[in-house]
Amino acid sequence: MTTTGASMPWRRACEGSALLRFLDWNLRGIGQVLFQDNALSGLLFLVAIGWGAVALGVPEVAVGGLLAVLVATLTARWLRVDAAGLAAGLYGYNAFLLGIALPTFLAASPLLWVFVVLGALVSVIATRALAEALKPLGIPVLTAPFVLVTLMLLLASNAFSGVDAAALPDVGFMAPIPPEAADPLRPLAFLEGVAHSLSQVFVKGYVPSGLLILAGLAVGSRRAAGLALAGALIALLVAHLMGAESQLVTAGLVGFNPLLTAVALGAVFQRPGVRTAIYALLATVLTVLAQGAMVALITPFGVPTLTASFVLVTWLFLLARLDSSTRSGPAS
Amino acid sequence: MTTTGASMPWRRACEGSALLRFLDWNLRGIGQVLFQDNALSGLLFLVAIGWGAVALGVPEVAVGGLLAVLVATLTARWLRVDAAGLAAGLYGYNAFLLGIALPTFLAASPLLWVFVVLGALVSVIATRALAEALKPLGIPVLTAPFVLVTLMLLLASNAFSGVDAAALPDVGFMAPIPPEAADPLRPLAFLEGVAHSLSQVFVKGYVPSGLLILAGLAVGSRRAAGLALAGALIALLVAHLMGAESQLVTAGLVGFNPLLTAVALGAVFQRPGVRTAIYALLATVLTVLAQGAMVALITPFGVPTLTASFVLVTWLFLLARLDSSTRSGPAS
Amino acid sequence: MTTTGASMPWRRACEGSALLRFLDWNLRGIGQVLFQDNALSGLLFLVAIGWGAVALGVPEVAVGGLLAVLVATLTARWLRVDAAGLAAGLYGYNAFLLGIALPTFLAASPLLWVFVVLGALVSVIATRALAEALKPLGIPVLTAPFVLVTLMLLLASNAFSGVDAAALPDVGFMAPIPPEAADPLRPLAFLEGVAHSLSQVFVKGYVPSGLLILAGLAVGSRRAAGLALAGALIALLVAHLMGAESQLVTAGLVGFNPLLTAVALGAVFQRPGVRTAIYALLATVLTVLAQGAMVALITPFGVPTLTASFVLVTWLFLLARLDSSTRSGPAS
Repeated sequence: MTTTGASMPWRRACEGSALLRFLDWNLRGIGQVLFQDNALSGLLFLVAIGWGAVALGVPEVAVGGLLAVLVATLTARWLRVDAAGLAAGLYGYNAFLLGIALPTFLAASPLLWVFVVLGALVSVIATRALAEALKPLGIPVLTAPFVLVTLMLLLASNAFSGVDAAALPDVGFMAPIPPEAADPLRPLAFLEGVAHSLSQVFVKGYVPSGLLILAGLAVGSRRAAGLALAGALIALLVAHLMGAESQLVTAGLVGFNPLLTAVALGAVFQRPGVRTAIYALLATVLTVLAQGAMVALITPFGVPTLTASFVLVTWLFLLARLDSSTRSGPAS
Repeated sequence: MTTTGASMPWRRACEGSALLRFLDWNLRGIGQVLFQDNALSGLLFLVAIGWGAVALGVPEVAVGGLLAVLVATLTARWLRVDAAGLAAGLYGYNAFLLGIALPTFLAASPLLWVFVVLGALVSVIATRALAEALKPLGIPVLTAPFVLVTLMLLLASNAFSGVDAAALPDVGFMAPIPPEAADPLRPLAFLEGVAHSLSQVFVKGYVPSGLLILAGLAVGSRRAAGLALAGALIALLVAHLMGAESQLVTAGLVGFNPLLTAVALGAVFQRPGVRTAIYALLATVLTVLAQGAMVALITPFGVPTLTASFVLVTWLFLLARLDSSTRSGPAS
Repeated sequence: MTTTGASMPWRRACEGSALLRFLDWNLRGIGQVLFQDNALSGLLFLVAIGWGAVALGVPEVAVGGLLAVLVATLTARWLRVDAAGLAAGLYGYNAFLLGIALPTFLAASPLLWVFVVLGALVSVIATRALAEALKPLGIPVLTAPFVLVTLMLLLASNAFSGVDAAALPDVGFMAPIPPEAADPLRPLAFLEGVAHSLSQVFVKGYVPSGLLILAGLAVGSRRAAGLALAGALIALLVAHLMGAESQLVTAGLVGFNPLLTAVALGAVFQRPGVRTAIYALLATVLTVLAQGAMVALITPFGVPTLTASFVLVTWLFLLARLDSSTRSGPAS
């Protein structure tokens, strides 16, 4: 959320046209999924999602994301949010993710689209509410509004026959994975897992999308792109060495949360340096474990964990304030 | 919690008698279940509960509520709470609800009554603790102390053979409701659902109680009564259109949380106006969905959700501060 | 966390030697499990754990505790925490408990030891993060970092075949205990339960360890030792009268959380007095019930509740601020 990149002509064009400005806000909203206050990054992410959605035969996913970010931007205006946050896309990225996630897990129906619009509206209110609640602690909302509002709607889908929770995980008790599920991973599957991890940040696994997302990220910040790649590589390696389920590794489901943690702590919310790098590395590894814990916690409810582990670990490490001069000891 | 209604003679009588004053505090405590700092509202609510309890053959429910509010008021005095809050009944309403809820779900036994007394004591401590915790955020405790302490005691009942959790929901995994459970609702069942929703605010469904509660609410604030009615109507209509289980709609179990949200956001904690009305409407609809999500979350534990969805949605919408001049953007 | 006891010769020796000073920090870290900023208390606790571990045939448990506290102290130095907290052992006790708990529930394997080291590292970060988050509320972190990090790693163990969750509780739905499980408790079993409760504070039940822990506590604070004993006695009596499972009472699993609550509220964080005693007594009894509720909440996930009920009840009662002059009413 530190970059402000935009070419001069685009900036000037936006100043002259309310429509282009509105478009700019929405593209930056998409860019902020990976912390980029950058319209071109957002555009590339959007193309990546659209391409993946069409290739995987689920165009409604891209439509949902686009619809949701537009609704969120309009809602933020109606709520008269702070102008800087609106222009930086800070009220859009949670809705964009929600708009992709809902059609991924719920079958298409009129009520699904009501959920997408309502969820987008509420994601803005949740962003403001969480920002207020976290202000005394000095930590950002990250994707917590996306996680909370999406999980609420997915859980609620059980109670209403107007939506069909067709693609939600089965409910059940967590069981340890069988050792044979952690088979020797082929190098190609490993690389596929890295690309899928980048793509899974946007809820879908598709290799070309992952590569395009990496390109979009590099447009906004090369450092962020490098950290995303390194974060995914480290996470997959660590997970594999600990005996994670190979299928999850390859599908990118093990890597997308640690990747986000690596970018957030290594490039966005802390000053670079050796201590920061060690700290971000520890957080990245911890996110692999936290993700395993979240799956165990959520299995009886039959919903996905989304980016909950990234949010919780990043909050923890930001709260602990590495090298802050204002830190103090435990109350006693 | 804004009304201070009381006839002059009653006010003067209370000033002259410690006993009447104590009675007044307790009645206002009952009135605060629906945000009324009004002894007559409290009295009408109490009569409504007593009538319903006798009619449904569960007089212990009314005894429990009365006992709990008395214990809570005495506890608040012992704890030397703020005089204004005590006199306004702010330390009583959570205990009153707890005193109704425990005998509803647990079979009568000596230990049940120990639970009621202990729960009432702890509800006051929980009220103070939550008020301290929420002070930096500027939001009220609502019925969170009732929800937390009651759920704790209901969950604990599994561990002690001195109480029998006779009427708790079965534990199990949540499953989507079958479409045929959302049958075409007859208009009469719909109206019954509205009256039951009013009554279920006090944990029981009984039409005459619901009407008397509406009257008691109107005594304190006509605006609040109108919003309660509108909130219940909207919630039931929305739930029905989304395909909610008809039996739950008719029993008032779908309507009581949204109704509380509508009153809280429309009449109690925000200034009236068009924007407020739209905002409260959105929150009311969201409470219907949040209630569905809460049921899915709590099903594996075999306890009811009480007013949790009202509390969470109202906190969210109050935290987001519609039209506050002190608002600021997400930390970044 | 108020005592600063240490004999003069030891103090002087520590001043002259960095190694002794480092040893002193670690011993105080162990002492802080029962709130004692006292190296001799810590040494006695360590001997008690070592003795119990060898007697029960699980020496890896003592090794884990020792390793974890050393790692945590080094981590705290690297993080440049406040010197006073470090010297008082406030960054060590959560790691010590984690280092005992992990080998108790997970089978020995290389990855287990990675978990111990990583968990110890993260426990320090969690201590700092929680201290920051709780600072505005003026309450201490207690053993929350231990509970959170240990539960995260135990839950995560399901996802990685490199660790074997050999000794975790079965997953399943909570069911009321059968009445015959609450049989008449023999006085000897009751006394055994008290000693086991003291020992279970450090995750293991062994009578001689319990007695040595009591001695170590008395070295630091006689008042704390008296309250621990009284807390355990009251908790076991109350639990038994309510019909708790006799086997759990005898094993000390019912008593260790209330015992901690009694010491925390009666001797450590509040000034002594009649009102404080009544308040601490109420909290101690409530912890028995909260522990029952925590077990019901955690059963579907197949992990232990550790000291969660002590932490939650003590936070609640500290937040409510008995006799504070800065208290105020519920926001309304």
